[in-house]
Amino acid sequence: MNVQTAPREALPEARREAQEAETPTALVERLARAGRAAQIQLARLSDAQKAAALRSAAQALRDAAPEVLAANARDIAAAESNGLTSALLDRLRLDSKRLDSVADAVAQVAELPDPVGQMIDSSTRPNGLVLQRLRVPIGLIGIIYESRPNVTADAAALCFRSGNAVLLRGGSEAVQSNRAIHAALVRGLVAAGAPADAVQLVPVQDRAVVGAMLTAAGLIDMIVPRGGKSLVARVQADARVPVLAHLDGICHTYIHAAADPAMAREVTLNAKMRRTGICGAMETLLLDAQFPENQAVITPLLDAGCEVRGDARAQALDPRILPASAQDWDTEYLEAILSVAVVDGLDAALDHIARHSSHHTDAIITADETAAERFLREVDSAIVMVNASTQFADGGEFGLGAEIGIATGRLHARGPVALEGLTTYKWQVRGTGQVRP
Amino acid sequence: MNVQTAPREALPEARREAQEAETPTALVERLARAGRAAQIQLARLSDAQKAAALRSAAQALRDAAPEVLAANARDIAAAESNGLTSALLDRLRLDSKRLDSVADAVAQVAELPDPVGQMIDSSTRPNGLVLQRLRVPIGLIGIIYESRPNVTADAAALCFRSGNAVLLRGGSEAVQSNRAIHAALVRGLVAAGAPADAVQLVPVQDRAVVGAMLTAAGLIDMIVPRGGKSLVARVQADARVPVLAHLDGICHTYIHAAADPAMAREVTLNAKMRRTGICGAMETLLLDAQFPENQAVITPLLDAGCEVRGDARAQALDPRILPASAQDWDTEYLEAILSVAVVDGLDAALDHIARHSSHHTDAIITADETAAERFLREVDSAIVMVNASTQFADGGEFGLGAEIGIATGRLHARGPVALEGLTTYKWQVRGTGQVRP
Repeated sequence: MNVQTAPREALPEARREAQEAETPTALVERLARAGRAAQIQLARLSDAQKAAALRSAAQALRDAAPEVLAANARDIAAAESNGLTSALLDRLRLDSKRLDSVADAVAQVAELPDPVGQMIDSSTRPNGLVLQRLRVPIGLIGIIYESRPNVTADAAALCFRSGNAVLLRGGSEAVQSNRAIHAALVRGLVAAGAPADAVQLVPVQDRAVVGAMLTAAGLIDMIVPRGGKSLVARVQADARVPVLAHLDGICHTYIHAAADPAMAREVTLNAKMRRTGICGAMETLLLDAQFPENQAVITPLLDAGCEVRGDARAQALDPRILPASAQDWDTEYLEAILSVAVVDGLDAALDHIARHSSHHTDAIITADETAAERFLREVDSAIVMVNASTQFADGGEFGLGAEIGIATGRLHARGPVALEGLTTYKWQVRGTGQVRP
Repeated sequence: MNVQTAPREALPEARREAQEAETPTALVERLARAGRAAQIQLARLSDAQKAAALRSAAQALRDAAPEVLAANARDIAAAESNGLTSALLDRLRLDSKRLDSVADAVAQVAELPDPVGQMIDSSTRPNGLVLQRLRVPIGLIGIIYESRPNVTADAAALCFRSGNAVLLRGGSEAVQSNRAIHAALVRGLVAAGAPADAVQLVPVQDRAVVGAMLTAAGLIDMIVPRGGKSLVARVQADARVPVLAHLDGICHTYIHAAADPAMAREVTLNAKMRRTGICGAMETLLLDAQFPENQAVITPLLDAGCEVRGDARAQALDPRILPASAQDWDTEYLEAILSVAVVDGLDAALDHIARHSSHHTDAIITADETAAERFLREVDSAIVMVNASTQFADGGEFGLGAEIGIATGRLHARGPVALEGLTTYKWQVRGTGQVRP
């Protein structure tokens, strides 16, 4: 297979039609095999070659701004005539400034350290065998996403930087934008000597392709869904390929009796209100009955326009607090709504979190080190925090660079997943003729 | 739930019957919930407490030798009357010496370092947040195995040492032996203050329980199948829970043109004939057409009683070599049979391995460092070796202690999986009131 062919957009019409007559399963298999072949070539590129190819892709994306913006305008026009909500239109819309940010993000990924080849550990056995564990790419990553066209570039860049081929399947609302962005990226990568099929976009919008990707065990090594809860739930329910994702971010902040009042107030307000729509936003506040300043924590939230839903004891703090239903404790609002419970001590807080946490990010505010350490140890979440805002749950804030997502599963990678999470390892063993006794 | 109850064997008959009336799904859910509750208690035990509990379990197993051997005798009698093969009978059979080894293995796991709480990395962000990644248990591990009763003890010890609860489902041939071993282990663990339900044995032999375990996503965190290829294939095909396993160990040794002849001969003989039934045994030998001593490598294998199946050029080396069929290149013999191909150079060897490897263990024998490094880099297997016998593919030989298995998948853990592979990690973040700008 010649992996240096032009990207899909340039295929002759006859071949395009033949493609479209394929079953979704056959299409995914063909794309996956092409991706796997390209990945083998990609794995032979050096760190510097991969970085140069990404810089070239970023430049190609900038050069393609007129085409990408025109394609995006067609998507927007179609979306408007289909009556999409203004929130969806906003996610879909690109302008020069946003497109510059997308290209900048690709160029920034080029500057991140290449995880491939990093040594995890090494040892020399008594018989002289030298063992090393080295990071290697996972292989072919499938990305299934919705209407944000920037994911096309972000996910492609992260997968490419870590030596993985990627198969992108974006939402139908963004089909024109995604094709234009993909074509530009591949033009840039190929110009720098990278294999075109390292970054593939599924060329048809048939929804059955998603199902075929989810069941392509052995062909696709990992699926990362990027989008709303219904997409993630569908992917988790149907996938036979391993999935890296989080379904919910029901993040808790527990104000311990020994919390500093000013810190409790400021961190709580930030955790809820800085940006309400991100997965690290606090959704439930647990107030210790022994904390003397509970009202002072709640008032600024209400004053800032947050709807607060509380249990009976929380409601007693302020007449503006609405009653919480049982469902509130398991709800990720992603907006300016907060559930608040008053709890009797650390054990009750740990118990509430164990029952309702989505294992994403949970925090305690306390000046009591013993309580802090117990919280850190016993809360079973990907990220546990002391005296900090849950809004820090982010690969960039963790110093990892851009992230492909946040994972709340237990295997492979947990919390913010960046380049390292897109690698696995191999054992290299060097001997001098050793045989096993 | 009181996790300090006596093990299943001691349950009153009425409750036993009630259990047996449960659907397999309800049974697995009940056991899994009990296991998860016990795991939370287990996670609170210190390293020293876990080690002491395992030593107590090993002693309890030694003390229970009469019961265990009597139970095993009943299994053997049933197996004989059911006409099991002598190989299966041998796997099933325990005697005092074998039972001592099983107890020793449990005691040895107690002496392995506890991976839980180990710090993977840490950093301090410019805003003063301190981030640490610490190893934590995965949660509840399901082990599905066949007729070897020692797996009951080995798997229980490894899961327990790493802070995981375990749900064991052994083969029906070993049901009496497994129950006796399990009862003894739990007696020892409980006597040392550990929760009984940390180690559970599925109390019924209904085959539908296996299906219920494989689909218990969210209740069981990982499944490890231990047994033959048909078991592993079934588990991999049906599981919705992540599986750590290898299906095949089609291990290759490639004798490069620049190999040392004596080393090539000795390593090859060891890789095939030391023990033919283990997954790290060589199944395919690739001889470089330019290596001058190919005959000297093959002759000792034939003389040792190995059946050799070769391609046309290999057959020319010795009249005793039988013709290989296309299927031979994809066959894990696990006995004294070897497929041999003559290849033209490193590229042809890499190509053969890429097409036929099971991604387990592959080795090159060469004195040429450039060839060695290319082989190590380009062969996509969990373990790649230079100048060593593939029979070293083993957690003990790698210095990891006992292994739960060898994994050929790409995610989470690859190659020999020991205690570390039974952990995941959490991020602990310590702040002083930081909010995200």
